[in-house]
Amino acid sequence: MKKICWNYRTPGIPDELFVRGNVPMTKEEVRAITLSKLRLREDSIVVDVGAGTGSIAIEAAQLCPKGKVIAIERKEEGVALIRENCTRFQVEVEILHGNAAHKLKAIEVFDRVIIGGSGGELEEIIQLCYDKLTKDGRIVVNSITLETLYTSIQCLEKIGFSYVEAVSVNVARGRKVGRYTLMEAINPIYVISGVKT
Amino acid sequence: MKKICWNYRTPGIPDELFVRGNVPMTKEEVRAITLSKLRLREDSIVVDVGAGTGSIAIEAAQLCPKGKVIAIERKEEGVALIRENCTRFQVEVEILHGNAAHKLKAIEVFDRVIIGGSGGELEEIIQLCYDKLTKDGRIVVNSITLETLYTSIQCLEKIGFSYVEAVSVNVARGRKVGRYTLMEAINPIYVISGVKT
Amino acid sequence: MKKICWNYRTPGIPDELFVRGNVPMTKEEVRAITLSKLRLREDSIVVDVGAGTGSIAIEAAQLCPKGKVIAIERKEEGVALIRENCTRFQVEVEILHGNAAHKLKAIEVFDRVIIGGSGGELEEIIQLCYDKLTKDGRIVVNSITLETLYTSIQCLEKIGFSYVEAVSVNVARGRKVGRYTLMEAINPIYVISGVKT
Amino acid sequence: MKKICWNYRTPGIPDELFVRGNVPMTKEEVRAITLSKLRLREDSIVVDVGAGTGSIAIEAAQLCPKGKVIAIERKEEGVALIRENCTRFQVEVEILHGNAAHKLKAIEVFDRVIIGGSGGELEEIIQLCYDKLTKDGRIVVNSITLETLYTSIQCLEKIGFSYVEAVSVNVARGRKVGRYTLMEAINPIYVISGVKT
Repeated sequence: MKKICWNYRTPGIPDELFVRGNVPMTKEEVRAITLSKLRLREDSIVVDVGAGTGSIAIEAAQLCPKGKVIAIERKEEGVALIRENCTRFQVEVEILHGNAAHKLKAIEVFDRVIIGGSGGELEEIIQLCYDKLTKDGRIVVNSITLETLYTSIQCLEKIGFSYVEAVSVNVARGRKVGRYTLMEAINPIYVISGVKT
Repeated sequence: MKKICWNYRTPGIPDELFVRGNVPMTKEEVRAITLSKLRLREDSIVVDVGAGTGSIAIEAAQLCPKGKVIAIERKEEGVALIRENCTRFQVEVEILHGNAAHKLKAIEVFDRVIIGGSGGELEEIIQLCYDKLTKDGRIVVNSITLETLYTSIQCLEKIGFSYVEAVSVNVARGRKVGRYTLMEAINPIYVISGVKT
Repeated sequence: MKKICWNYRTPGIPDELFVRGNVPMTKEEVRAITLSKLRLREDSIVVDVGAGTGSIAIEAAQLCPKGKVIAIERKEEGVALIRENCTRFQVEVEILHGNAAHKLKAIEVFDRVIIGGSGGELEEIIQLCYDKLTKDGRIVVNSITLETLYTSIQCLEKIGFSYVEAVSVNVARGRKVGRYTLMEAINPIYVISGVKT
Repeated sequence: MKKICWNYRTPGIPDELFVRGNVPMTKEEVRAITLSKLRLREDSIVVDVGAGTGSIAIEAAQLCPKGKVIAIERKEEGVALIRENCTRFQVEVEILHGNAAHKLKAIEVFDRVIIGGSGGELEEIIQLCYDKLTKDGRIVVNSITLETLYTSIQCLEKIGFSYVEAVSVNVARGRKVGRYTLMEAINPIYVISGVKT
């Protein structure tokens, strides 16, 4: 297993450095924005719900050397990938394999939470996050569907999060074809965030 | 002067925290991507060419506590804003007031350079950056025009930068109007980057 | 009053040819897409709900010389603008001034309907449209908010429209500044459509 | 061969109605914008350079019943597809198989030209178009690369076209996955246009 020593202070590790399998991954430009909305501290306790390949969890672990990152993932394939990527990047992430709501209940308290996947229980999960977040704790939801986008905004507001914000991100990347730069779109992502005040 | 203690490890300081005047500013989501493409180390020497309000320089200064940030800006109004923002965020940035090419020549060597404005001398500036960058040094150009986009790609390739890459970033932000979230677009930005290998 | 003879077969009349006032207008590129989703016939009876400046109604009137276009608008300012634009482009549009749901009830039947504004009664309006549309009739909703986007999709599906579709449209236009082309974004629009089968 | 009777006055025939093969096709939303920038008259003589599947040529033929559409395509596969699509939509398009510049020289005069592909001879082709266009004739270039975008703007301005304009179009389409609407991006397209005055 090739090890990678990522010595940079800035998030946005290139996608191709991660082991990916067939699990969808948050692209590096979107990850940079997502992590910026999380506003991590070096001692933050961060939960990644629906961690997928673990790309966000791993970046968070590097940014929070005095904190802790917990990744919740219900698919075996995802759990294996997160584990592999942790080894590759030599970071420690606590991996919880199972249902998001169930696993969230088992965590006592955290400062930051990113929801990348919810398995259809989004509202319950957001309520649980609100209950468990510390004061000034932050939540970020990454959505690729219009329904999760809408429900996240509605839930965050209803449950009582402050500074609820939604941004849409459309990134396209140039791919070199001969002397031409062909622009290829990444699917749009909606990044919703809020603060427990 | 209100001071702000930005204790987070992640870039993407909210736009409204900066003193802005009438100078255009790189928006927070774009700044997060730009800084991620710069791949800063804690000891990087960073040059910000056409620093504007200084928002990128200030974030860089916070990310590189053992390095140094130099901001070049030709407009008096910009210089004053950078100075104000440095005071506000309590970071140190060396400010060079004047023509970009002229000021770049006076700097011995640096590890990272971000070009946010070029005053029409883009090609000369990129060549100067190549000459002064250390090995594995990185350049990022932020462009809002099609001409700077094209010229940057052409120049970076011709001069010999490796891993030349261009991404376009279209962000829209939700603004609450009553119970509605109205999506407002930020102008598209092109982020071009390369490495001196 | 300057009269304009628009002799083209293709929709997408330039924005600046319309009298606009302070009323928001569907931009020409979005109008071209919106009208394409409406699939107008030369004899279509078309209703424009929340017609604003009347730009869509006027293009529809030109495309349906053997049909009829009815524009519903509740603001006096809008009604005056639609009237002015009809004179300018020398087309006939029946203008109904008042509440959308109320006015829709007074129309017997129509083949196409575009909803550009709903005054908060979106669900009732969509139901009314379904009731009044002829077989194979088409509905298009243009939305600038996430709530109208979501509600439109939900309603169209629940009420029984077929081929429900949503596209997001992000257009930026080059503005010449000296020898540079500065890209300026138009706010994103969501275009939702369906068919009564 | 299934025949399709497209009885609508508005462009934007759904992509899936065309025979496509492996040839890239201008997507329906982009086609609607492209055709709107062409401003077709019912008697326009239109040339489609690099016609691909012929989707634009076929829409143009339907919009210009008293005019004529000529499609230039250098690949055999493209020529066969254009022919098939003409049969399917029951429209007449004159197909010229071969090099774009060479074939353009053989056409005496035309009112509108759309360039979808140039085979690397973009500048010569644009000059030829200028020479052969009638007064008030219009040119539109659809580009998926940054180089063609830049070169088109430069050429159109240098050669003497008026009202040179560039827009970027980012469309994403909702795809239903269970009860979710997943937004899938179409690659960005740049639409450049000008008028011979």
